[in-house]
Amino acid sequence: MSSSAPKKTQIIRVESGGEERSVQDFVAVEEPLEIRVDGTPAAITMRTPGHDLELAAGFLFTEGVIEDRDDLQAIAHVDNPSTTRGNTVDTVLAAGVPAARRRSADRAMYASSSCGVCGKESIERLMKLSPALQHSIAPDSDVLMRLPALLREEQSVFEQTGGLHAAALFDASGTLEVIREDIGRHNAVDKVVGFRLQADRMPIDDRILLVSGRIGFEIVQKALIARIPLVAAVGAPSSLAVELAQRSGMKLIGFLKNDRYNQYAG
Amino acid sequence: MSSSAPKKTQIIRVESGGEERSVQDFVAVEEPLEIRVDGTPAAITMRTPGHDLELAAGFLFTEGVIEDRDDLQAIAHVDNPSTTRGNTVDTVLAAGVPAARRRSADRAMYASSSCGVCGKESIERLMKLSPALQHSIAPDSDVLMRLPALLREEQSVFEQTGGLHAAALFDASGTLEVIREDIGRHNAVDKVVGFRLQADRMPIDDRILLVSGRIGFEIVQKALIARIPLVAAVGAPSSLAVELAQRSGMKLIGFLKNDRYNQYAG
Repeated sequence: MSSSAPKKTQIIRVESGGEERSVQDFVAVEEPLEIRVDGTPAAITMRTPGHDLELAAGFLFTEGVIEDRDDLQAIAHVDNPSTTRGNTVDTVLAAGVPAARRRSADRAMYASSSCGVCGKESIERLMKLSPALQHSIAPDSDVLMRLPALLREEQSVFEQTGGLHAAALFDASGTLEVIREDIGRHNAVDKVVGFRLQADRMPIDDRILLVSGRIGFEIVQKALIARIPLVAAVGAPSSLAVELAQRSGMKLIGFLKNDRYNQYAG
Repeated sequence: MSSSAPKKTQIIRVESGGEERSVQDFVAVEEPLEIRVDGTPAAITMRTPGHDLELAAGFLFTEGVIEDRDDLQAIAHVDNPSTTRGNTVDTVLAAGVPAARRRSADRAMYASSSCGVCGKESIERLMKLSPALQHSIAPDSDVLMRLPALLREEQSVFEQTGGLHAAALFDASGTLEVIREDIGRHNAVDKVVGFRLQADRMPIDDRILLVSGRIGFEIVQKALIARIPLVAAVGAPSSLAVELAQRSGMKLIGFLKNDRYNQYAG
């Protein structure tokens, strides 16, 4: 089984003047995960091992293949002779899942979460799939400004690698519900969504999603499908992320610091 | 035609105590680019418009579809009724490009550069495609430590958005050859490779590739196919990036600062 623990690596540390020392360091683990639907490969994503079932369930949800936990009859790691043990997850969909949604696994493969692309008419198509948000959440500004520090505290076990993104859900009072980390920020979001899906607590319409890095279209897309009303990022948003948030009634916050933030939509 | 200039956006800036001001800000532009091969869609990537032909050429090169400039008979923006003007690039391959390589455009679509996945046996397969590097480059450590500041200087025009990755080529004395920026770091690397390909100056076996963020498998993979002997990143490398660099004889440097860096391979 793959491990999410940082991987020990022997490195050469070079300092000013050219002084070199051989030291032991840690790097974030990156390995491919193959996600199958009814035995057929649907997607491969480079991820940090750990919470793989949440990742696969969350991915199938945010890509529109499953709509609730009942759509997922079974989910488990399976053997795959062509990759490392623990790097393949198969899923069995309920008989009632319509063919069109099963096929969106293929679409997802083409426009994989990792690619952040959902097609040519990205926003228009998505707004048809996922109507504008009905719920909102209005935390105090000082609650929001406390969140990045809370995220960093929880992330501390991984600080030795410096290589992982984090995604977390908070309630309106700033209480952390769940945090997940991954080398891909889309995967960290899928893990958080999968956590809620597997607990059969969807939609996520009363939570703040905080992500550690920048925020592009794909993150807003995933949050919208999970019905998350407020997405905040420590880094910058992209133009398409802002546009989708505006269109869907989502509150979008960027550059969230301990004394300020920018609100781009909502 | 799409523009790479940061997009003006009206935002609300919130400061400690909850004071709110409506101000004009800028966000990095993110739009889908469809890359076609002989009229058939081969990949869609979310990118920052600008240097699209370099991006498409570099993508086809680093994905193994074309091997030199002569493989590319024509490359141009084309009309596409289903997306914004300027978001589709078509390419015409030379008659001599074998079918197997033409098909790798399909593989690339599956395992898009954006996904950073090249299949289940990632490293093994890649080592068959692309043998270990023969060339090396050995810049002085103080030259390396100067590079991040040079990158930031050149990036300054985009500093207003905070949302773009950069990739640049330097020679062994630290002289900048080319820098490209994009919302996707894989795209920034493809643009740099495409710049060299379109100038018919491949392989890139005497240059340092510097990237602004973290470094995963996909970046090392693209650099290896372009035969770049030294890859340096301002951020952390992943386990698979380190492993591929070690296997291929590439020098890999992470956490490159003005007074230190870590050497992970080479």
